[in-house]
Amino acid sequence: MNDYDVSITQISECTFPTPLKFAGRDPSAAIRYRQDADRVRVFPCLRLGEDDGQDATFERAGPREFITGDPSQMTAAILTCGGLCPGLNDVIRGLVMSLSHHYGVRKILGIRYGYAGLATGGHPPVELTPETVDDIHRDGGTILGVSRGKQDVPAMARTLLDWGVDQLFVIGGDGTQRGALELSEEFERLGAPIAVIGIPKTIDNDILWVDQSFGFDTAMEIASRVVNDAHVEARSAERCVGVVKVMGRDSGYIAAYAALASLEANLVLVPEVPFSLDDKGGLLDFLEERIQEKDHAVIVVAEGAGQEHFENAEAQKRDASGNRLHRDIGDLLCDKIRQYFNAKQLPVNLKYLDPSYSVRSAPACSTDRIYCTRLAHSAVHAAMAGKTGMMVSRWTGHYVHVPLGMVTQGRRKIDPTGSLWRTVLESTGQPCLSNGKPK
Amino acid sequence: MNDYDVSITQISECTFPTPLKFAGRDPSAAIRYRQDADRVRVFPCLRLGEDDGQDATFERAGPREFITGDPSQMTAAILTCGGLCPGLNDVIRGLVMSLSHHYGVRKILGIRYGYAGLATGGHPPVELTPETVDDIHRDGGTILGVSRGKQDVPAMARTLLDWGVDQLFVIGGDGTQRGALELSEEFERLGAPIAVIGIPKTIDNDILWVDQSFGFDTAMEIASRVVNDAHVEARSAERCVGVVKVMGRDSGYIAAYAALASLEANLVLVPEVPFSLDDKGGLLDFLEERIQEKDHAVIVVAEGAGQEHFENAEAQKRDASGNRLHRDIGDLLCDKIRQYFNAKQLPVNLKYLDPSYSVRSAPACSTDRIYCTRLAHSAVHAAMAGKTGMMVSRWTGHYVHVPLGMVTQGRRKIDPTGSLWRTVLESTGQPCLSNGKPK
Amino acid sequence: MNDYDVSITQISECTFPTPLKFAGRDPSAAIRYRQDADRVRVFPCLRLGEDDGQDATFERAGPREFITGDPSQMTAAILTCGGLCPGLNDVIRGLVMSLSHHYGVRKILGIRYGYAGLATGGHPPVELTPETVDDIHRDGGTILGVSRGKQDVPAMARTLLDWGVDQLFVIGGDGTQRGALELSEEFERLGAPIAVIGIPKTIDNDILWVDQSFGFDTAMEIASRVVNDAHVEARSAERCVGVVKVMGRDSGYIAAYAALASLEANLVLVPEVPFSLDDKGGLLDFLEERIQEKDHAVIVVAEGAGQEHFENAEAQKRDASGNRLHRDIGDLLCDKIRQYFNAKQLPVNLKYLDPSYSVRSAPACSTDRIYCTRLAHSAVHAAMAGKTGMMVSRWTGHYVHVPLGMVTQGRRKIDPTGSLWRTVLESTGQPCLSNGKPK
Amino acid sequence: MNDYDVSITQISECTFPTPLKFAGRDPSAAIRYRQDADRVRVFPCLRLGEDDGQDATFERAGPREFITGDPSQMTAAILTCGGLCPGLNDVIRGLVMSLSHHYGVRKILGIRYGYAGLATGGHPPVELTPETVDDIHRDGGTILGVSRGKQDVPAMARTLLDWGVDQLFVIGGDGTQRGALELSEEFERLGAPIAVIGIPKTIDNDILWVDQSFGFDTAMEIASRVVNDAHVEARSAERCVGVVKVMGRDSGYIAAYAALASLEANLVLVPEVPFSLDDKGGLLDFLEERIQEKDHAVIVVAEGAGQEHFENAEAQKRDASGNRLHRDIGDLLCDKIRQYFNAKQLPVNLKYLDPSYSVRSAPACSTDRIYCTRLAHSAVHAAMAGKTGMMVSRWTGHYVHVPLGMVTQGRRKIDPTGSLWRTVLESTGQPCLSNGKPK
Repeated sequence: MNDYDVSITQISECTFPTPLKFAGRDPSAAIRYRQDADRVRVFPCLRLGEDDGQDATFERAGPREFITGDPSQMTAAILTCGGLCPGLNDVIRGLVMSLSHHYGVRKILGIRYGYAGLATGGHPPVELTPETVDDIHRDGGTILGVSRGKQDVPAMARTLLDWGVDQLFVIGGDGTQRGALELSEEFERLGAPIAVIGIPKTIDNDILWVDQSFGFDTAMEIASRVVNDAHVEARSAERCVGVVKVMGRDSGYIAAYAALASLEANLVLVPEVPFSLDDKGGLLDFLEERIQEKDHAVIVVAEGAGQEHFENAEAQKRDASGNRLHRDIGDLLCDKIRQYFNAKQLPVNLKYLDPSYSVRSAPACSTDRIYCTRLAHSAVHAAMAGKTGMMVSRWTGHYVHVPLGMVTQGRRKIDPTGSLWRTVLESTGQPCLSNGKPK
Repeated sequence: MNDYDVSITQISECTFPTPLKFAGRDPSAAIRYRQDADRVRVFPCLRLGEDDGQDATFERAGPREFITGDPSQMTAAILTCGGLCPGLNDVIRGLVMSLSHHYGVRKILGIRYGYAGLATGGHPPVELTPETVDDIHRDGGTILGVSRGKQDVPAMARTLLDWGVDQLFVIGGDGTQRGALELSEEFERLGAPIAVIGIPKTIDNDILWVDQSFGFDTAMEIASRVVNDAHVEARSAERCVGVVKVMGRDSGYIAAYAALASLEANLVLVPEVPFSLDDKGGLLDFLEERIQEKDHAVIVVAEGAGQEHFENAEAQKRDASGNRLHRDIGDLLCDKIRQYFNAKQLPVNLKYLDPSYSVRSAPACSTDRIYCTRLAHSAVHAAMAGKTGMMVSRWTGHYVHVPLGMVTQGRRKIDPTGSLWRTVLESTGQPCLSNGKPK
Repeated sequence: MNDYDVSITQISECTFPTPLKFAGRDPSAAIRYRQDADRVRVFPCLRLGEDDGQDATFERAGPREFITGDPSQMTAAILTCGGLCPGLNDVIRGLVMSLSHHYGVRKILGIRYGYAGLATGGHPPVELTPETVDDIHRDGGTILGVSRGKQDVPAMARTLLDWGVDQLFVIGGDGTQRGALELSEEFERLGAPIAVIGIPKTIDNDILWVDQSFGFDTAMEIASRVVNDAHVEARSAERCVGVVKVMGRDSGYIAAYAALASLEANLVLVPEVPFSLDDKGGLLDFLEERIQEKDHAVIVVAEGAGQEHFENAEAQKRDASGNRLHRDIGDLLCDKIRQYFNAKQLPVNLKYLDPSYSVRSAPACSTDRIYCTRLAHSAVHAAMAGKTGMMVSRWTGHYVHVPLGMVTQGRRKIDPTGSLWRTVLESTGQPCLSNGKPK
Repeated sequence: MNDYDVSITQISECTFPTPLKFAGRDPSAAIRYRQDADRVRVFPCLRLGEDDGQDATFERAGPREFITGDPSQMTAAILTCGGLCPGLNDVIRGLVMSLSHHYGVRKILGIRYGYAGLATGGHPPVELTPETVDDIHRDGGTILGVSRGKQDVPAMARTLLDWGVDQLFVIGGDGTQRGALELSEEFERLGAPIAVIGIPKTIDNDILWVDQSFGFDTAMEIASRVVNDAHVEARSAERCVGVVKVMGRDSGYIAAYAALASLEANLVLVPEVPFSLDDKGGLLDFLEERIQEKDHAVIVVAEGAGQEHFENAEAQKRDASGNRLHRDIGDLLCDKIRQYFNAKQLPVNLKYLDPSYSVRSAPACSTDRIYCTRLAHSAVHAAMAGKTGMMVSRWTGHYVHVPLGMVTQGRRKIDPTGSLWRTVLESTGQPCLSNGKPK
């Protein structure tokens, strides 16, 4: 537990007094500079009497009194990668505003379509200024565009060097952050003092060492409304089952939170908790009981749940980013439910809702908007302080620097015996659907 | 720092095996019971090299394997006190659902109008069941009603004893929690094993030892939209100033977060940071500059800000709960601004917005809804485990038990040199308005 | 044109002085009773110089001074049929409130699951009171449930006679209104003085002689937001096409209005206007041009559009209500687009959104809510005045009685040379996609 | 009744074939040109047997086959006047898009701050293009700014002539339209063939000969939510009265519709219906009864209601536009209510909400957005056809040309014996508060 390497790599020493300005004024009398010795504990929980030696700490984010050089001579670049997520434009806006207004950076490049924009023969970047980003937070999506798929790291590094980039801000998921780590290592190998700072973005909330990823509050708000829509449909016809499929490839956070927020789901299916379909005590059994008793039911299913119910589960395809392509669990569930009740001469009405694009493309809600701004400012302060190969994050409520090496070691998942999943069980009253065996 | 008393009082020993059920089934195979030895650190931050001895920990919330007695014989009571706040009905619903469905409590009393409903000759309580609370989360407000003001503690204790109450859940602010503490002490004095569990409620987010109070996400969302309205108004006429007054008696959190979320505020005024009005470099000076340059400005002011600008500040009145009644800083600001610009022959258009009741009365957003459910379930688990004189809370992201003695020692405030206020300065670009002196 | 039969059948003479009361008070001094001679023109438009003899008029809705009998002895029944539509609960609520509070009706039956609830062996009805319906307008759907499919008319009439029903309120689409007409004719044949009053409900806005059907404002608001979501998606990736499928079996109103409201659609496809796919100047041609120029496009397609592009168009199935079951034009479009661009080595990103259930299940917006209340009150006044075989409607802004014989003569459709479709062309700039031939 | 002058003045003959284009294509094969002989009846209602000779008709709006000249040589100008209203930016956008894309106008001036921008020494206009207005509909307010107050007509005419303006689009209320009429008359006097086209804008919905003014659907939606907030507050405390003041100087439409939409108001007070305060059967009497019975009440009051209760009602001031400045009826009501109940030793809780700025500054909802677009396109078609001194309007659901002479003859008001007010009485159950005397 204790051997996490929480140290952050520096591109160079910090000897240049920060020109930090808010509204053209030196804020040093009004604020507190952070030092690298300011830390946040990695492990806030413990069991008394057990010496677990969990004393690892993350560096705290925030402005440093000395930075690596003169920002007015620096070039920054920003890219967004992967799927859409509420708040992308807020992060871009926050980065540009901080680079420009707080530090006086004069050249900020917006890379088009993620890593594809850095590949050989990619799209030329656009220049970003406070004026061009002033209103972009009102729209969902990203003004820079996204793409999926890996690109050649040395080629990307060369492009960035050609463009004279000093700081690269990479907004993306775990695959994207792995790319950021490789880029930072490539620059180290080349002896190029270029800061690579990650900002964690995942609609699935599945990045390690982040309290919660930005856009997630917005996502659950929208998804939970669709669960309510399904509930309205389910209650308005005889023997009616509403099925809502939400995103969640390996982690069922959206499904869990949308169900909790709507308070109307009767079953939540997530990748982390396998379930029986046809067995006694399985999903169809439970559903029949519920329909007999209440005449309607609502199921919330994460796209990655129940993959064990597909034949040839081994032979799965992967998308351009290397993510496993899931077969549609929503379709499978609908088929199985229809067959089961038809066989019992009790045909059900099935209402299948898939709000994924509306969840992804929404503009950020208030909490996400603020969170994006604070992540962005933290990222700029980190880059100015010469940090690289790291990601900004909020951890136990505090903004911190997390080494990318820690981030890319896995994916965050719901603990099936933890308090979130317990609250789902408490709230839905759903039984264990796996032959009584907890996972 | 180290001498916080984090211990929680027990009303009696826990020897009764929990009858905890989810949907009529024993969940013990699927969940993890918490022990009192499971803890969450009170202080997640530190500075390396400084031995601050900050090793205090809170008890972690959650179901215990043994409880104090047979819930089917218990009577629970719930009350809400103080002003409205989004999520009150969600908490009530969560308490009733958990008491009834998880533990089998058969008698749950809803106290009318807060402590007034426990006073001699108060209103009779209503009985609450899963059916009566099933849909209440869709409405703002509280089905139980609220009131302000202190009541006689021994008289309230007697009422509760008369009614045979075993567990009292008190949803309210710091004044209300002080009352809960006194009640728990009165019961201890009387040798009556009655659990008093607080649930922190404050639209101002000013209760100590809570990450953030429930309803606050909702409040900032609504308040931030009104800041946007003010911005639209301010931009549509010549020399136009929008002033939005929000709640925040001693703590300016709503003002700060609403401004951050809207990204449209030019000045945020909070009780924690004094400001000059007429002095050089003061508010009016800054406003004139801004109007000259941009022709419009938006000010977000917390109701408790700038109280130093009223004459006879000493002679303030207090409301029924003992809170100081503030003079209307919004009116004062409008008057001062009008006079100043009239004197300069540059009359301004002033748009004054006060959305307070709409902020308070909204139904909870998704994040608050889930938070309320989890606080409520945690409160029931705590009461069943015989805890008393404590408040459930989320601290560094984890649900914990906080002794009421710690809660009532003050009010939570924005740290003027901390990272939240720094983000406000970064985001608005507002100068220090107090003669250059940081507070 | 002149031979519309606009006359309304009476079940009996009106000799009983109305007991109309608002809040327990006789409103006769404050309101104006309507007479059958109060009329609204059927044809508000004309061309000068052409004597089209269009002087047909509808009876105006509203309370009459004399009604058919003593409401306190009457039994009313309400049913909802077909698919969900925003506002159903508002209409139910308005009917119950008016019957009970305005006229003193003591027995109001809520028929379960539409006409199925009147069939032999159907579900027993529920009793409706002001208390049971007080809050139902906050929820989408219908508390009574719906079903599809025809039932035996004499059997339904017998059920209603058995239950002693004097007034039947039928909320549904054109098929449902045909059933209402048949029921009213059956009662006439049986000499049973039972008033059958239709209230037009159709999410497609395709009922004749209604300005616009209730719920439609809500539907277009929600659908237009999803068009915006598609636009955000389409702009965030290279060569990206968003396709939004909305309801509209024979009439493309939702598609047209959602596109107009969003201002982001580039192509609107409706059943009333055929289009070429592969031909020169057809959809794929236009799309390629658009992608070349702008890199993204948004298509809004009504479910009933482009049915001519399916093979064996003749052999279509019909649903339980006799509606033709459409093959999925959204899937077909996506397939064709994908193939076309793949063949050109310019693969596109396709984002397919189908918000139908969320559109149907939403609670009514303000305008729809008021409209539902006014339709409901008008329906009650009509039934009390002994009208039958008619539908209440808003026509040129005024509430009127329309004979069901006029309603069931066809479906309302967009006029491809009229001003609505012209505005769609003006707003989207989409070309005629049918080889230059207007329809 | 018959002597309405519905004729529209022409600035010159139409001999130039319209260059109308949608997306660069000639739409003549797909659309129907309108002729001046296409008409819409002014009076859609009648009483059979009464020959009221109501055969006046309005010209129908829409594109004409011939226009006055070559649009590519024309200069258009747009101005917004008075208070904010949802949809202003939508109208501006629609005008610019139609002028530019449909007709090829190359020069479009945006006048700053209404008529003030045309006064001698006013603000220089801005140039508007499809690019500058593309996204403005997402924001409330007006990008052009507004002002109040009259300006010298000959001076304004001179400015417009100096700028070479051929078409002036005037978006504003009845005072603004009076100015537009005077400008058109001034141009006629000067022999200058300049088209002046009005677009009716009034948050109060008080302009004559319009079905409903744009922005009103949005206004009622927002106001009705605040009525709900007041209801939540009122139900959460003992003896609580919520008072919501909304706009409505001479016409109480917002109050009436907001109350109808919320279904929670118990009293609606509008300028058109006087009420007693202290008399038996007056407001305070009714309120006491209501509080005794239900413990809470919600009052919606239009700002112009109850002006008879102020002393010296004669001596009222007027604002810069000549509108009478009302004393605050909300404050007066609160004072009276407080005094009355205090005197009875039954002090009430009073919650006073004034959402006016939030109602005005909202972006338009879907129905308003479409309406604005259609009004704007109709206005451009009218100007191109050489019409002047007229206003575009929707009347009985159809778009028409209304001579400004008809518009400026008064203000539209609620008919206290008509069906809207009857629905308010039906819905709230409020009694006649004026000693039983209908107005």
